[in-house]
Amino acid sequence: MRTIAAVDKYMNDAHRRQVEETAARCGFAVRFFPNGDALRGHETEYEVLYGHCSTDVLKASRNLKWFCCCYAGVEPYQDESVFPSPDTLLTNSSGAYGITISEHILMVTLMLLRRMPDFQEVVRQHGWLQSLPMRSICGSSITMLGTGDIGTNFARRAKALGAKTVRGVCRSRKPSDPAYDEIYTLNEMDAVLPLTDILVMALPSTKETACLFSKERIALLRPDALLINVGRGSTIDQDALMDALNEGRLGGAALDVMTPEPLPADHPLWDTKNLILTTHCSGNMSLGITCDINVNMFCEDLERYAKGEPLKHLVNRRLGY
Amino acid sequence: MRTIAAVDKYMNDAHRRQVEETAARCGFAVRFFPNGDALRGHETEYEVLYGHCSTDVLKASRNLKWFCCCYAGVEPYQDESVFPSPDTLLTNSSGAYGITISEHILMVTLMLLRRMPDFQEVVRQHGWLQSLPMRSICGSSITMLGTGDIGTNFARRAKALGAKTVRGVCRSRKPSDPAYDEIYTLNEMDAVLPLTDILVMALPSTKETACLFSKERIALLRPDALLINVGRGSTIDQDALMDALNEGRLGGAALDVMTPEPLPADHPLWDTKNLILTTHCSGNMSLGITCDINVNMFCEDLERYAKGEPLKHLVNRRLGY
Repeated sequence: MRTIAAVDKYMNDAHRRQVEETAARCGFAVRFFPNGDALRGHETEYEVLYGHCSTDVLKASRNLKWFCCCYAGVEPYQDESVFPSPDTLLTNSSGAYGITISEHILMVTLMLLRRMPDFQEVVRQHGWLQSLPMRSICGSSITMLGTGDIGTNFARRAKALGAKTVRGVCRSRKPSDPAYDEIYTLNEMDAVLPLTDILVMALPSTKETACLFSKERIALLRPDALLINVGRGSTIDQDALMDALNEGRLGGAALDVMTPEPLPADHPLWDTKNLILTTHCSGNMSLGITCDINVNMFCEDLERYAKGEPLKHLVNRRLGY
Repeated sequence: MRTIAAVDKYMNDAHRRQVEETAARCGFAVRFFPNGDALRGHETEYEVLYGHCSTDVLKASRNLKWFCCCYAGVEPYQDESVFPSPDTLLTNSSGAYGITISEHILMVTLMLLRRMPDFQEVVRQHGWLQSLPMRSICGSSITMLGTGDIGTNFARRAKALGAKTVRGVCRSRKPSDPAYDEIYTLNEMDAVLPLTDILVMALPSTKETACLFSKERIALLRPDALLINVGRGSTIDQDALMDALNEGRLGGAALDVMTPEPLPADHPLWDTKNLILTTHCSGNMSLGITCDINVNMFCEDLERYAKGEPLKHLVNRRLGY
């Protein structure tokens, strides 16, 4: 029987049942594995793989025809040589993370605007401090660098919370969401940076985005601007960002992604000033709603796969997203 | 000439100009003071006082006819004996704090839902942790205890962010805002508590609200419920809340108000589990937009005062708000 291997680390019983029932309807059996490593020794047993695994397991999956990666970022799989065959289909789960990551962006944006790290330090010392200059999302100018699912989810939230102007900077597909007041191309970005209170980066790691946010672009931001990155660490000149923060040339930053990950314990990023660092946890599947959407997306594409229709979440390996 | 004393601690030049121009139109001169203490020695010189001061300064203000308190909470002024005359008018600035305090509520709610204190502790130790069970505002059931300016501002934001049900529990004036899915009276509150994911308390300190959120009511909340208080510390049985948090009978809490304030350095509240403590900073006037609204509200009531019309923000001293 045709078989699907599914990594069920974050699934609950309802998710497993949904995958099994969809698979049965499509003529597949499902075998669940607790994580990608558990696939070792079983690499030849499945036609479809849903989840996440290391590239050596992927390469050894000789009968694999479709790999549905449960993450949105697929940079380990951009190189065709990691697949058992050039015909292996790759889909990602871009679209499942907009809610959770936009809530993360909102949280760290408010923490920066409201000086929460300073207040938390006072509280840690059992001190009392009531007044520090604060700012509001109301009336702010927000620029989304990356206008996919994550960028657009945050754009909608920012607009609903009273942001004055929400600008989108997009690479290719122009978003049509009414949350954007203005849309720019990457080439036009530099004109927008000096107008920005809060810059949110939600870009994938591709050849085009590597170090896109250079020292020169950081210098175009105002000294009170906030920078938030939830895409990939490779898209920022991280050394230049550390310098700008330590020298007070930026209002603050929040990084959920960085280079390298995990960050070594002695890396200077840990102690950079006015920086909220999180450990790439913004898009974790531990948020139930993320797993709900993720499983839905796989099941919908499974129906298409079984009928021989084009997959909706297919990754263009040349572009990398 | 009739004189206004205005405490201008948080005002910028535009605010001062606005107060001066409105006063001139109404036949008043304005004298600015950097804080309430600076009024000492000048207590007999003004008919109107806008700002904040200690009760002894207030009592000594023999020619005072109207005190416009720049805060929303006026519990130090509930006792008629602190006024120079029973006829002295008292207005408050309830209505100026909805934006800033609702952004605070949103920030701490997301921090609790997304386990930010746990992640921050890992980061403080330069560790790496990606996965903890998280929750979302999307799909949540939110109960606002207090449906005034603050409660309604947060209700609107919660609804815009995808909350499933937003319930309001009101004391007297029924809010008509469409952000509320359901409205209950104080007497009906106990039925709603077990249905609540996130309980937000934004109540003034009055005789009616003292210890309103008792040990018995805390026990009606689910073990994963979150409790956020931005009103007054006196409205909660604080010892019972500490016990519930330390014993894991609540999902978490965030208190911006407590008893006493400032909190003594050796108070057990500082080290209570799953508690985000802030130092009564959620409604600080250091947020520009709060001061803008605050000054607007005073100037509008000043026009009414000069014409002998009823003041819009008059406090009912018997009710205390």
